[in-house]
Amino acid sequence: MPRFALKIEYDGRPFSGWQAQADRPSVQSAIESALGRLDAGFAAGARITAAGRTDAGVHATAQVAHADLARDWDGFRLAEALNFHLRPLPVAILAATRVPEDFHARFSATERRYLFRLQFRRAPATHDRGLIWQVLQSLDAGAMRQAAAHLVGRHDFTTFRSAMCQAASPVKTLDEIAIEEAAIPHGREYRFHLRARSFLHNQVRSIVGTLERVGAGAWSPDRVAQALAARDRAACGPVCPPHGLYLCGVGYPCDPFAD
Amino acid sequence: MPRFALKIEYDGRPFSGWQAQADRPSVQSAIESALGRLDAGFAAGARITAAGRTDAGVHATAQVAHADLARDWDGFRLAEALNFHLRPLPVAILAATRVPEDFHARFSATERRYLFRLQFRRAPATHDRGLIWQVLQSLDAGAMRQAAAHLVGRHDFTTFRSAMCQAASPVKTLDEIAIEEAAIPHGREYRFHLRARSFLHNQVRSIVGTLERVGAGAWSPDRVAQALAARDRAACGPVCPPHGLYLCGVGYPCDPFAD
Repeated sequence: MPRFALKIEYDGRPFSGWQAQADRPSVQSAIESALGRLDAGFAAGARITAAGRTDAGVHATAQVAHADLARDWDGFRLAEALNFHLRPLPVAILAATRVPEDFHARFSATERRYLFRLQFRRAPATHDRGLIWQVLQSLDAGAMRQAAAHLVGRHDFTTFRSAMCQAASPVKTLDEIAIEEAAIPHGREYRFHLRARSFLHNQVRSIVGTLERVGAGAWSPDRVAQALAARDRAACGPVCPPHGLYLCGVGYPCDPFAD
Repeated sequence: MPRFALKIEYDGRPFSGWQAQADRPSVQSAIESALGRLDAGFAAGARITAAGRTDAGVHATAQVAHADLARDWDGFRLAEALNFHLRPLPVAILAATRVPEDFHARFSATERRYLFRLQFRRAPATHDRGLIWQVLQSLDAGAMRQAAAHLVGRHDFTTFRSAMCQAASPVKTLDEIAIEEAAIPHGREYRFHLRARSFLHNQVRSIVGTLERVGAGAWSPDRVAQALAARDRAACGPVCPPHGLYLCGVGYPCDPFAD
């Protein structure tokens, strides 16, 4: 059966997350249901596999999943057909392409990139509601960068992973945390860019929630180094809400979507 | 009674427009209802007046309105109290400030600025749904700029106003149409910036809808000059949808919100 990779964008607001769950709307089920309109295997219950299973309220601009279809398709036509059947849900297939049978959206991935959008503004968000995490005081980006530097590299991230995390080992290599700061009308936006081969469950939200405490002046940058060294979930700052988080890229040894 | 100017941001999606209408949600009613929690006059039915009465689905990042309150308020505290009472509606008071009694949000305004966001992309919008107008083919920004140049200046804009427009004269001076073009993932965004002392009803949407036809190659830039000269509503291109339109600034001889 020909295997296809899909590059997927979605608004996480109406979904209980990526993963299909009985009686709850998920991005996975939405796409499988659209595939079921085109393909007998999916009509009969075939499943897709994604690079990252995002939590409820988390967004994606470039999630990747693979699907095995009964017949061959032109990638452009497959994307257009799926987008037609996905309406009116806020899920878009940005690209679809035939991949080798040994391509696996999750296990072949060598890099995940996440963006977290945090805004300081007094007035409540309107157009961006559910798309950012808003705080009511200005943050010190320099202090957050100083703290973040302690987290880059190979570490035991026990402090920064959910108690529910199923990963075999808490040791991960965090390749990058870049923090951009920009003025927005009546406030400031802080964009956290994180890059790693893979992440632990809630790792990004645990890190951003902790860095926000540093930015607000409640934590010193050094306390983040101590929290990491403690290898103790109780040493973590507050886990921040999901709705500023975007899965924005998945890397493979050979990019299936390269033209 | 002390008069206050409010700078207001809103997401137009859930509203039937700025103007209060019986049994339909409006931005004006939402703010008057929040004022009614703070002020006896508004509890008894006092009204606010805005610089521009935006249509259903149209957004604002800096609408301005004025309100006469029974007592004096600190501007910051007034904005915070209104934002509290506006929850959970997507309306935010960005600033509130005491103004002279002869300040009138509508009649004192000497400039209105609108932004229109138009995106070309094949895949449907997700996070931006209802915040942009999406088209399925790429547009020629150079041709749109050439066509737009015919509209700048003082003209009879009969072609580009709604049949419902109540303005006494169709003659207006359009000070600027700037068109920015930027790459977005898997597409392009065109941002139209329009500036004038005042606009006719549906003027921006009539202009953008017509320029899109030029960008798509269906109209020559010169046809826009001919349409303007015709002074005939039937010569206008299609009026574009409201949901890419933002009232993004109102100018006054003396900016009430200047620090």
